Amino acid sequence: MNYKTIDNKDIECLKSIVSNDEERFLINENISEEYSHDELAGIKKMPDVVLKVKSAEEVSQIMKYAYENSIPVTPRGSGTGLVGAAVPVLGGIVIDMTLMNNILELDEENLTLTVEPGVLLMEIAKYVEDNGLFYPPDPGEKTATIGGNISTNAGGMRAVKYGVTRDYVRGLEVVLPNGEIVNFGGKVVKNSSGYSLKDLIVGSEGTLGIVTKATLKLLPLPDKSLSLLVPFPNLHMAIETVPQIIKAKVIPTAVEFMEKEVILASEQYLGKKFPDHASGSYLLLTFDGRSKKEIELTYDHVAKICLECGALDVLISDTEERQTSIWQARGSFLEAIKGSTTDMDEVDVVVPRNKIAEFVEFTNELEKTIGIRIRSFGHAGDGNLHVYILKDELDDAAWKQKLNAAMDEMYKKSNELSGKVSGEHGIGYAKMGYLEKSISKETLDLMKGIKLAFDPKDILNPKKLF
Amino acid sequence: MNYKTIDNKDIECLKSIVSNDEERFLINENISEEYSHDELAGIKKMPDVVLKVKSAEEVSQIMKYAYENSIPVTPRGSGTGLVGAAVPVLGGIVIDMTLMNNILELDEENLTLTVEPGVLLMEIAKYVEDNGLFYPPDPGEKTATIGGNISTNAGGMRAVKYGVTRDYVRGLEVVLPNGEIVNFGGKVVKNSSGYSLKDLIVGSEGTLGIVTKATLKLLPLPDKSLSLLVPFPNLHMAIETVPQIIKAKVIPTAVEFMEKEVILASEQYLGKKFPDHASGSYLLLTFDGRSKKEIELTYDHVAKICLECGALDVLISDTEERQTSIWQARGSFLEAIKGSTTDMDEVDVVVPRNKIAEFVEFTNELEKTIGIRIRSFGHAGDGNLHVYILKDELDDAAWKQKLNAAMDEMYKKSNELSGKVSGEHGIGYAKMGYLEKSISKETLDLMKGIKLAFDPKDILNPKKLF
Repeated sequence: MNYKTIDNKDIECLKSIVSNDEERFLINENISEEYSHDELAGIKKMPDVVLKVKSAEEVSQIMKYAYENSIPVTPRGSGTGLVGAAVPVLGGIVIDMTLMNNILELDEENLTLTVEPGVLLMEIAKYVEDNGLFYPPDPGEKTATIGGNISTNAGGMRAVKYGVTRDYVRGLEVVLPNGEIVNFGGKVVKNSSGYSLKDLIVGSEGTLGIVTKATLKLLPLPDKSLSLLVPFPNLHMAIETVPQIIKAKVIPTAVEFMEKEVILASEQYLGKKFPDHASGSYLLLTFDGRSKKEIELTYDHVAKICLECGALDVLISDTEERQTSIWQARGSFLEAIKGSTTDMDEVDVVVPRNKIAEFVEFTNELEKTIGIRIRSFGHAGDGNLHVYILKDELDDAAWKQKLNAAMDEMYKKSNELSGKVSGEHGIGYAKMGYLEKSISKETLDLMKGIKLAFDPKDILNPKKLF
Repeated sequence: MNYKTIDNKDIECLKSIVSNDEERFLINENISEEYSHDELAGIKKMPDVVLKVKSAEEVSQIMKYAYENSIPVTPRGSGTGLVGAAVPVLGGIVIDMTLMNNILELDEENLTLTVEPGVLLMEIAKYVEDNGLFYPPDPGEKTATIGGNISTNAGGMRAVKYGVTRDYVRGLEVVLPNGEIVNFGGKVVKNSSGYSLKDLIVGSEGTLGIVTKATLKLLPLPDKSLSLLVPFPNLHMAIETVPQIIKAKVIPTAVEFMEKEVILASEQYLGKKFPDHASGSYLLLTFDGRSKKEIELTYDHVAKICLECGALDVLISDTEERQTSIWQARGSFLEAIKGSTTDMDEVDVVVPRNKIAEFVEFTNELEKTIGIRIRSFGHAGDGNLHVYILKDELDDAAWKQKLNAAMDEMYKKSNELSGKVSGEHGIGYAKMGYLEKSISKETLDLMKGIKLAFDPKDILNPKKLF
């Protein structure tokens, strides 16, 4: 593909689309370095221009212009991604979606919330909870935009019971690469009217279209919730307990696992004590429901299973304060690990949930054989692990070599266990090679064919996914 | 597209794929007339050959042969569809999937069931319930195959609380039009690894690939369930109650509406009395949960709302026998209506659930203005209506004219209400024109582009969807 380099005429035309507003049209030294990278992926590239849009109409006009002139465009939300999906690797235009941050409609009769893509996850959670309603997806990064969540099909803690972002997206307004504005899905609960283009956009990491409006499914807010912190002598015993809980036909809201080292890092990072850090490993479980009685039945059962599987204790957090403090610690793990080292990269594989123990033990072995510090935590209840490979005092050459070796081994292992490259962070730029290795040529060709149908000039978020 | 007419050489080659087994290779007078149509759509066409396959490998070989020779292929399950999706409108090959009817694996640690596509919905329900587990999708037609359910993204009664087939399909093995066997998704709970081809296959009505294996998500079986039959003086009052229930932050498992006339037809058809048929309209609600106590809290609340909204009574069915009898009656509505007339066609629109009353009242008006008998029932809780237009004693010309007039008006109204052409029965052959009218040219072009990426020779289920 031959892309056009942005010239003065392009600059004038693009600037006029955002009403020549200097605060919404950034160029040269006005573009913050932040726009060149995301939260983690080791790739940086500055865009030529940044447009901070306020409407689908503006996005449409920008795309029409870019399409006619073959200029690459990369959409960006909060920039909290971990795989470089929002990095403009070919330069060109970045469309910053964060000013499209209005909550448009709460429809209590259809239990839907319609929002612009720049609304933050934490804003949605608060808004619906204030109205006695519940948006279940709960990724760790609460400052992500909902547009970003939709683009990566973000999962989060509560996927065990409630599923992932895809399950809560009912309808989307999307600007196509050629600038046309289309609507997929709607407020309807069922739909069997042709191919589900809505489901194709969810998880497509901004490569097929730009989401400019989303209608989300809500649930009634559970009245009560309660967390259990369960210490185990070692990781193996902790994780092997999870399939036993599932087999007992109980579905907790969330089941996270954590190791002592990560808890200590978090205590240091937050300057706060965790309720317990004496044991090797922990499961953190949450239960929710309509009444305390209902939850008690469930957690009693689970507590017994944990003890039978070798748990050292079962610590109940039934006040909001205690729960918040534990989950705050859990929410700080990524930052705490990041703060403990010089550089790091991550693996976000998902495996069938009865294979997690095998995978985590494999990474612990790698730590020794490769000689690199590895820390992991994650969603034990849904098989989605977050494994961090840490640079510490390694020189650049050794870091690169050991990091690649560790990643190669982990993705190979995940494939062996019928896992997937990414559970929720996506492929972006950083994991392209691993995606290609994990799927068949036929599957890859289908994905390329779909991209071609949406974006024949390959101008929207090029060089991502494959 | 130029298709090849099947000749003697093709017959020999295709026959050898199913081991020259005369019972699995049907031709000429051995092909039952059943293969020329489905349950309802007014389209008939006999295939040239029928192959009853036993494995993905056989499907793959057939598709490879058909692809090389440009022969149209139509996959078929139980033939219970209502829109002609399984009718071989261009002749050629029908692949009958019903012998691929093995339940392959129940994985209690990952809560999944892996099945071949020819397993019937009723067989899945029984098998998992015998194991204390639950496959929530519950379409009225229990003799449909799961492959058919996946192809139409079937919804059913319990979509209000539990969602539709799509929400329970974790992984698919699919034979592509060129004969390649691919796997999309898997046992994993989360996935953000490229475009969701699994979600593209779900609801694609056999036009993109043939499902040869499916891994389904299960839930723990609810311990208790209970139904309420709630008579109302008229339909308007019954249906207007539904958004009030939803607004009260209660989610029943199912909410169906029915009118007196349909109940009377069902009584006649089954030769059994319905618990009540004195009132104009009814809501039938089900609640399920882990304990009787939990359900009671919910239904008490809902019963009060119903009475406040003008319900004449609330009849509780808490024994399995009484519940079965009511739901059996509900399950017979389609057959009962069919038995009451000479011919009929249906409209399966879905509208936002607070628009159902408006839509049903509109169809009742049409009955008068067009002068044709119309009966409807359906899923009040999820906005999916089944409206039947009945021929009775009309001559063919009048029937065709009035049917088309009624359908045109209904689809126009559904569009006005932000509804969709089909909630769960699909587009198939019969509703193509209405789909094209309801979506934008850009959306249609995207669907065509996707079809082209999967099936460049347009041999798999051609002349369907668009």
